[in-house]
Amino acid sequence: MNKNTKFLIVGLGLIGGSYAKGLKKAGYEVGAIDVDLESINYALENKIVDSAYSEINEDYIKKFDIIVFALYPHVFINWIKENQKYIKSHALLTDVTGVKGAVVNEIQSILREDLEFAAAHPMAGREVSGVYNADETIFENANYIVTPTEKNTPEAIEKVKEIGQILKFKNIATLSVEEHDEMIGFLSQLTHCIAISLMTCNDNHKLALYTGDSFRDLTRIARINENMWCELFLLNKKELIKQMDLFIKEFEKLKLAIEQDDEATIKEMMKSSTLRRGYFDKNK
Amino acid sequence: MNKNTKFLIVGLGLIGGSYAKGLKKAGYEVGAIDVDLESINYALENKIVDSAYSEINEDYIKKFDIIVFALYPHVFINWIKENQKYIKSHALLTDVTGVKGAVVNEIQSILREDLEFAAAHPMAGREVSGVYNADETIFENANYIVTPTEKNTPEAIEKVKEIGQILKFKNIATLSVEEHDEMIGFLSQLTHCIAISLMTCNDNHKLALYTGDSFRDLTRIARINENMWCELFLLNKKELIKQMDLFIKEFEKLKLAIEQDDEATIKEMMKSSTLRRGYFDKNK
Repeated sequence: MNKNTKFLIVGLGLIGGSYAKGLKKAGYEVGAIDVDLESINYALENKIVDSAYSEINEDYIKKFDIIVFALYPHVFINWIKENQKYIKSHALLTDVTGVKGAVVNEIQSILREDLEFAAAHPMAGREVSGVYNADETIFENANYIVTPTEKNTPEAIEKVKEIGQILKFKNIATLSVEEHDEMIGFLSQLTHCIAISLMTCNDNHKLALYTGDSFRDLTRIARINENMWCELFLLNKKELIKQMDLFIKEFEKLKLAIEQDDEATIKEMMKSSTLRRGYFDKNK
Repeated sequence: MNKNTKFLIVGLGLIGGSYAKGLKKAGYEVGAIDVDLESINYALENKIVDSAYSEINEDYIKKFDIIVFALYPHVFINWIKENQKYIKSHALLTDVTGVKGAVVNEIQSILREDLEFAAAHPMAGREVSGVYNADETIFENANYIVTPTEKNTPEAIEKVKEIGQILKFKNIATLSVEEHDEMIGFLSQLTHCIAISLMTCNDNHKLALYTGDSFRDLTRIARINENMWCELFLLNKKELIKQMDLFIKEFEKLKLAIEQDDEATIKEMMKSSTLRRGYFDKNK
């Protein structure tokens, strides 16, 4: 990556702000656009970005070589529709969106011919949000997934991977859009559905006193930004429902075995779960 | 507690061994009985106990004032049936068993008139087992629940609570046997059922590479000792099935809302789960 490459972050929340911090730390010029003036002021005062605007400014947008979209999916798509005309010719667009099928195809189909959008998903986050909590070190132990399509050039994919390296992600991988959404449906969305249901199935706050680590571990992610996650769930509905059904089937199997004192099945499931969990520790 | 009180640990596994270490550290004489000679030798060599036997020894058992049973429930009940005749008159018996309804009533109904059993549940553990991993510091951040019944004297309950203080538990509480089993069914057994089902519902170890903290958090407890947990599940079957049904109902509600694009219900559940999770952090 040429050291003179200029980055524009559109959407200065937790992830956008963390990108800005990491890219500036690596020596790049970073600008930002966000509708929230407070976020803009905070980022400028704290030197998280070199420049920033809360409104669309044609001359400003034209300056940037790489634009990172860190917006809600529907806001991202609308932004492209309305403002892509201001983007410099041959600029590279990338994103941080947590679902890909519903976003990548739509953006690539409406994008100007002289622009390229190569999608990526930084699998990092915190329980708090906003640019005020931006922290580039959240990427150090995280995965960065690039999802190329037939509309992408190898050069753009390489550049987007390089962004992952600059931000010091632990692991940079490539998946198809479909593989990505299946993986996210299982590893992230299903686990959030479980945590939410566990937290709401019992009016249990009198039990908080007795809580051990296992319950805390299972419900840590039950604190959730309902606007963002509702949108992500619905955009990946087909895959998420499939994963929820797989889980229900297995949970019902265990329940039946307990009801019927079927020790063989219970122990077989426990042994299988113990074995499989081992793979996940190895790859830590 | 009189400093000359002599403790006998029956069952020298992770919890029995950790009790032994904590009690010795506090200055008490601690003996042990375990059928496994290797565990006995390890505990003696490492001064985890002052004395120990792998066989039943009448004169040895008679020495002790307080006996802590750290056995599987059915082994515990059999031990009492066969060996209670050797216990010193007016000795106090306690335990560490993870379910109470199926154990406490049975033991109290078969126990000699001149002995008293006051049950307790130290809610602590590790992902590894055996006396080799004994560590008295696992109690420092944990809850200790005493479950008195009408057969107990206030003096015995006070002594059993004092054991919890000696072992430096963070929180010492009293619950009825029924309240205890409901709480354990929800906070511990249901969470383990969820982790097992999540781990076995998808032959997913190719996904290990992409795993973030949320999936690791939810499945940490999927590594499970199938013999112990199968017994605990079945002994608390009625309560556990009730909790599993509550969870399934809520999970199905969320699934239906996603299928029907019912944003209001999805967001309402997310807001409720975020709010409730807050109570559990406050009590950390």
